[in-house]
Amino acid sequence: VLLGLDVGTSGCKASIFTLDGQLVSFGYREYSDYSPKPGWIELNPSEVWIKVQEAIKDALRKKGCAEELKALGISSLGEAILPIDKSGNPLYPAITAYDQRSNNYAKTIEMLKHEFGEMELFKITGIPLNSMPSIHKIVWIKENMPDIYRKTWKFVCIEDFIIYKLTGEAAIDFNLASRTMMLDIFKRRWHPEILNLIDISEDLLSNPVPSGTIVGETSSKVSKEIGLPKGLSVATGGHDQGCAALGAGIGDEGPTMDATGSVECIASVMKNPVLTEEMLKAGHCCHCYTIENMYISLGFFPSSGLILRWFRDQFAFEERKRAEEEGSNVYDILTELASTSPPTASKLLLLPHFCGSGTGSQPVLNRNSRGALVGLTIYHKKADVVRAILEGVAFELKQLIEHFESSGIKVSELRATGGGAKSPFWLQLKADVTGKCIYLPSVTETTSLGAALLAGIGVRAYKSFKDAIEKTYKWREVYKPNEKLNKQYAKIYETYKMLYPALVNLYESLAII
Amino acid sequence: VLLGLDVGTSGCKASIFTLDGQLVSFGYREYSDYSPKPGWIELNPSEVWIKVQEAIKDALRKKGCAEELKALGISSLGEAILPIDKSGNPLYPAITAYDQRSNNYAKTIEMLKHEFGEMELFKITGIPLNSMPSIHKIVWIKENMPDIYRKTWKFVCIEDFIIYKLTGEAAIDFNLASRTMMLDIFKRRWHPEILNLIDISEDLLSNPVPSGTIVGETSSKVSKEIGLPKGLSVATGGHDQGCAALGAGIGDEGPTMDATGSVECIASVMKNPVLTEEMLKAGHCCHCYTIENMYISLGFFPSSGLILRWFRDQFAFEERKRAEEEGSNVYDILTELASTSPPTASKLLLLPHFCGSGTGSQPVLNRNSRGALVGLTIYHKKADVVRAILEGVAFELKQLIEHFESSGIKVSELRATGGGAKSPFWLQLKADVTGKCIYLPSVTETTSLGAALLAGIGVRAYKSFKDAIEKTYKWREVYKPNEKLNKQYAKIYETYKMLYPALVNLYESLAII
Repeated sequence: VLLGLDVGTSGCKASIFTLDGQLVSFGYREYSDYSPKPGWIELNPSEVWIKVQEAIKDALRKKGCAEELKALGISSLGEAILPIDKSGNPLYPAITAYDQRSNNYAKTIEMLKHEFGEMELFKITGIPLNSMPSIHKIVWIKENMPDIYRKTWKFVCIEDFIIYKLTGEAAIDFNLASRTMMLDIFKRRWHPEILNLIDISEDLLSNPVPSGTIVGETSSKVSKEIGLPKGLSVATGGHDQGCAALGAGIGDEGPTMDATGSVECIASVMKNPVLTEEMLKAGHCCHCYTIENMYISLGFFPSSGLILRWFRDQFAFEERKRAEEEGSNVYDILTELASTSPPTASKLLLLPHFCGSGTGSQPVLNRNSRGALVGLTIYHKKADVVRAILEGVAFELKQLIEHFESSGIKVSELRATGGGAKSPFWLQLKADVTGKCIYLPSVTETTSLGAALLAGIGVRAYKSFKDAIEKTYKWREVYKPNEKLNKQYAKIYETYKMLYPALVNLYESLAII
Repeated sequence: VLLGLDVGTSGCKASIFTLDGQLVSFGYREYSDYSPKPGWIELNPSEVWIKVQEAIKDALRKKGCAEELKALGISSLGEAILPIDKSGNPLYPAITAYDQRSNNYAKTIEMLKHEFGEMELFKITGIPLNSMPSIHKIVWIKENMPDIYRKTWKFVCIEDFIIYKLTGEAAIDFNLASRTMMLDIFKRRWHPEILNLIDISEDLLSNPVPSGTIVGETSSKVSKEIGLPKGLSVATGGHDQGCAALGAGIGDEGPTMDATGSVECIASVMKNPVLTEEMLKAGHCCHCYTIENMYISLGFFPSSGLILRWFRDQFAFEERKRAEEEGSNVYDILTELASTSPPTASKLLLLPHFCGSGTGSQPVLNRNSRGALVGLTIYHKKADVVRAILEGVAFELKQLIEHFESSGIKVSELRATGGGAKSPFWLQLKADVTGKCIYLPSVTETTSLGAALLAGIGVRAYKSFKDAIEKTYKWREVYKPNEKLNKQYAKIYETYKMLYPALVNLYESLAII
């Protein structure tokens, strides 16, 4: 069996899979909420390390797992980075992608823009220039925490942090390294001029290697403490979306992952990266994938399932109560309610920008954008509002797909992953809205599975990526678009597309009040 | 004592007042829901007459009321009109203001526009040309129901219908008659050229007389059936808003009524009517008031308290339950909840166009406009949404006041009436938003009071309107604007004003799907 670690923004999962991709055992730990100041979004790396160990221990409780374990691979959230000393001790919390401490990191952005130009940088790193990549956080620490910077042995992302804790080796895979905006995605090494510009030595970064490379073995101390086999092989994994896509069996152009968690993210892969003006403008990255010599493009928006959870917490007292009494799932009750509303929710539109806008629609990644529920009449019922949430996410998803396709990225089908994949009603609705077949993989926690597959690649449990995918990817359900509904949705989608442009100036005006 | 009848769109009230304006007894009956086809909005006049009798009977149950009753006056909803035969039998249901059966009555509108021009018509009738006035409904019956038209003895509004049932006389007051768009508001008689254009004889309409004219006595049959004194004097009353303003003691320029029921309506009165292009464009009428030789202007939007009721029914399960358990009022619980949200509801804006737009903002009376909740984030709580509803109504109210003032209509203070006047929190919020002092009259059911005062005027229980107002208008509370909050609201109000223009095209596009 193989262990896939999925270290995320709010918690970590440890999942053990058989070689044919069946989930055998599972551990999950949530982090405590932590945000030191408004706009400062950090992760406490010491807590993350503790929770990772606990999650692994939980997963290993299942009989036989520890004995049969062949290797471990790690999937990590992107961008978050922290300074450590030679002993692996964090010198400062990890600063995450959405952190806004430094006036949106405008200074570094200006410097990079001035020195390289946005397009040139995009052609080197595959990353559109914005405040998310790790590079800005390194510069911030260098400039604002000189004492810490002086003591820093290496800046590590969460993957290399955990690998270092487990093995004493500092290695990062190309897929996650791409998210720092410091990797040359063609030469697959840290880009000397970028490092030079921010005056950072290559020694301060982990060694970039392909995903699925065995970079070391667990130390005897760690193995003993966690209960792992002695000298367990540890493989580089990848960025969470890169692992999730691999776990969803995406190894070629066409099939596109649709991950619905708090965030909605689509991922397509290709042999030759698409690094056009259009992609840059849309905010769509295109960088190293977890499969060597392939590339991945991501499109996303930051609030998807999050909105449904918000609605559950604020407006679904009755449904929560019923779920509690019946021992049923409140989301099932909510989607059942939504199904009583007609398609297009009696012309009620939801703009799902509850945490700002995503990629694709201009202006992209606009933190001043907000959500909106538009078209309300006194005839609307709660069911219509729930349906409007599900539809709003589906319309925004359709828009992402359209942007991909207009950039020449093929989207032949969707493969649903994440928590949102648990709702057959939502999947059918997305199929009807997007006009794409949606395949539901047997395993929907594909992030952990992808990390485990990379561990398997590392120890040659699979002959190739193709072999790994063939052995593990199965779909258990397909949702085909209903043609009549698709046409009906297409009409209202034209109006949906007017929503963000109509409100964007108003949101700017709200932001400066 | 005096009896004021308030015959509305969803029910009727019979209220008995002492001469100094104290409510002594009260009866209320709701009509059954009735809507024959989508867009056809009718009132069943036979049911209305039955419910009026029942409401009066209820009010008369109080000991001594029947004996001391001096006169009865009637307030009526505007525009609704029906054909009756000589015996007072309805030949067809009453067609109401919002009825849309005839493609928005475009044909009659075009004919009137072509023959008179909008401005000329406005200068004759004080009514902006739209589909609401009774004239369109008469034409529709004439053209589509020739058999009924042939049998019609008179077309009556609800006031004259009830008066005819009570006394056998057909009389209508100038205030309500103005709402038909057939009255010459200067000469105070049916306008011959308008009647000529639609080919209607003056005999087909009731005799227009001043509000507060005793037009007859109850027949002995009616008195016996209902339990009214023999030969009770029956006075013309007025349009509901005209009666409500009178009941709120509005007898001169400056003080402005703010009635918050399902609808929000403001009313100012003046000696000389304001019949400018600007008023016409804003959709603000200016026609005969219930006080002779005075005029009244109305500004309104069709969904105000209605939105709060909608929220209660759809999203306040928890609060409804609590109200039931505690025996408290669910609206009190909701406004208490709203008070936990900060002013401006964390920048959450509500456009209260749940039944279309009102007067003032362009385009006016736009049935394609809809409500919107704009600025949503995952940090918003239910309390913010409730506050946004209360604030959205207050912003729209402020906009109405601004339009009045820019037309030269003085708004020195607001006087709150209707169900919304029961919430001190909402009244204070409206004061803070509008910057106007809001007076809460001792009697908030001022419509019935106004009708009763007109009965009193008719039987000379009061020397004059001035005397009637002095004897009956008292305020029990004043809400003064908080200057600091007023400034804070003024900022977000600028953004609020962007909302309708931003969405108006989108709503047009939604309407044609």
